[in-house]
Amino acid sequence: MDASCVVRILGSAAGGGYPQWNCRCPVCTLAWDGDSRVVRRTQSSIAVSGRLGEWALVNASPDIRQQLLDNPPLQPRRGQRDSPVTAVVLTNADIDHVAGLLGLRERWPLRLFATRAVLMALAANPIFRALDETLVERREIALGVPFHPVTDVEMELFPVPGKAPLWDEGDEVRTDIEDGRTVGVALRGAGDGAWAHYVPGCAAVTDALRRRLAGTALLMFDGTLYADDEMIRLGLGPKTGRRMGHIAVGGSDGSLAAFAGCAIARKAYVHINNSNPLLVFGSPERCEVEAAGWLVAEDGMEFSL
Amino acid sequence: MDASCVVRILGSAAGGGYPQWNCRCPVCTLAWDGDSRVVRRTQSSIAVSGRLGEWALVNASPDIRQQLLDNPPLQPRRGQRDSPVTAVVLTNADIDHVAGLLGLRERWPLRLFATRAVLMALAANPIFRALDETLVERREIALGVPFHPVTDVEMELFPVPGKAPLWDEGDEVRTDIEDGRTVGVALRGAGDGAWAHYVPGCAAVTDALRRRLAGTALLMFDGTLYADDEMIRLGLGPKTGRRMGHIAVGGSDGSLAAFAGCAIARKAYVHINNSNPLLVFGSPERCEVEAAGWLVAEDGMEFSL
Repeated sequence: MDASCVVRILGSAAGGGYPQWNCRCPVCTLAWDGDSRVVRRTQSSIAVSGRLGEWALVNASPDIRQQLLDNPPLQPRRGQRDSPVTAVVLTNADIDHVAGLLGLRERWPLRLFATRAVLMALAANPIFRALDETLVERREIALGVPFHPVTDVEMELFPVPGKAPLWDEGDEVRTDIEDGRTVGVALRGAGDGAWAHYVPGCAAVTDALRRRLAGTALLMFDGTLYADDEMIRLGLGPKTGRRMGHIAVGGSDGSLAAFAGCAIARKAYVHINNSNPLLVFGSPERCEVEAAGWLVAEDGMEFSL
Repeated sequence: MDASCVVRILGSAAGGGYPQWNCRCPVCTLAWDGDSRVVRRTQSSIAVSGRLGEWALVNASPDIRQQLLDNPPLQPRRGQRDSPVTAVVLTNADIDHVAGLLGLRERWPLRLFATRAVLMALAANPIFRALDETLVERREIALGVPFHPVTDVEMELFPVPGKAPLWDEGDEVRTDIEDGRTVGVALRGAGDGAWAHYVPGCAAVTDALRRRLAGTALLMFDGTLYADDEMIRLGLGPKTGRRMGHIAVGGSDGSLAAFAGCAIARKAYVHINNSNPLLVFGSPERCEVEAAGWLVAEDGMEFSL
């Protein structure tokens, strides 16, 4: 049987990409030096398609132009103006997930699906008027209500613990908000396909979230940092992963431990920060997660459901 | 004698780049098909450096991450966080010139130089708070007043006819504004170097502008469209070049005619739209401008002054 739904990883890195423009941490240095144990990665986005050839992007990364050039199925096919990309779904209003909207201007009709909180964050920035509202329809999606971004793909947004976007934080430092500012996406081929789940940002794995994700056919989950204090320890910044809205992979309260014992057919870490040793083939951390059945996503990987 | 100043073309295409994500016009189709008469181009930006190794970007294009990865002199050299890029100068607030600022986040001190009109356009968008004001200093530059974006490079902004950014147009359709919303940049090695001029957007060549640019050692000038009605004729959009704030290259009122007879040592078209036949080696239009002494800029070209 043909797959009813295809998921392609456009960008598997966190904000900044890998390597990051201004970073010479040990892991970035490998990329700058062309070490064969690492591959470069663009910023966080996937593309989803059913059988009909239209694609929905989940998140629009700053690297979107390069990502579309690197993925021929997403390129125009006929006529003067054309694109198989007809929808964008957003999981939050972080820069690595929305800046690429500015690359989707140029008079092409799109539908933009997001929660009220995310649409309001965009609307507060007049620069996004570049996506002419007469061509790019904003559709507010309620948590838990199914929708079809393209005809033959069904999705549902669900809340995950997170925080406001960095640029919109103000004095707020809460990272346990579940009000739709950060969501996960359940997706499947329309009708009867198996469900996959995409969660590129998540501050904690609650019992409710674990119950929701147990049994999924494919989990793509936040792999930003391996260790919660990774940025501090490397001298890259003052914040823990948790403070940035990202649960660590390792440790007794990390995602690796949280999902141990869950029946998940395939699982892949996405949204991987440039500092994360998971990016290095053969590192102890990489061996540990692979031994637990996790893939470390790369740009261009494709999954069939 | 060593050059006192180096100019590197990071991106030679107009907004959307070449090819453009949703375009199959005749010129884009050559790129999608891998035709050897064309080369791909990223969006509009140059980098300028003196002898000391620091770089100032003029404009920050949406393709900035790819541009920094493609240009080793602009990559980090030492320590944990580092970049030779310490300044950004903006010529207007168009998306192809400012969206890349969002790629320069990640806790790196920069100085951002622009006119009051351009800084106000940025300030109206909270998303640019991602460039923390305690690290990224905004410096308002008055027209005609020299400044040093990096120690050993001198610049001056001058008005050129233009318009408000597309996303900030409202009902305004004037393209003859010279209030600092669109500027050109004069630049040289500090002290005594020859002057170069960078004008990636310009709606008309006035007598005053021609007098200013005549005699420059290097002119990089707006080559968006070859013909004023190019977009309309190809069915790509309803606007003339003039309406978009860009003088055409060809025709009796185009830039080629306007600068004929000016003593300009080197001259190169930049900010070239995906529809422009100048992008095709051997096209009649390309032969015409080359016969008149113009280069058609490519990404990675470098000029010494």
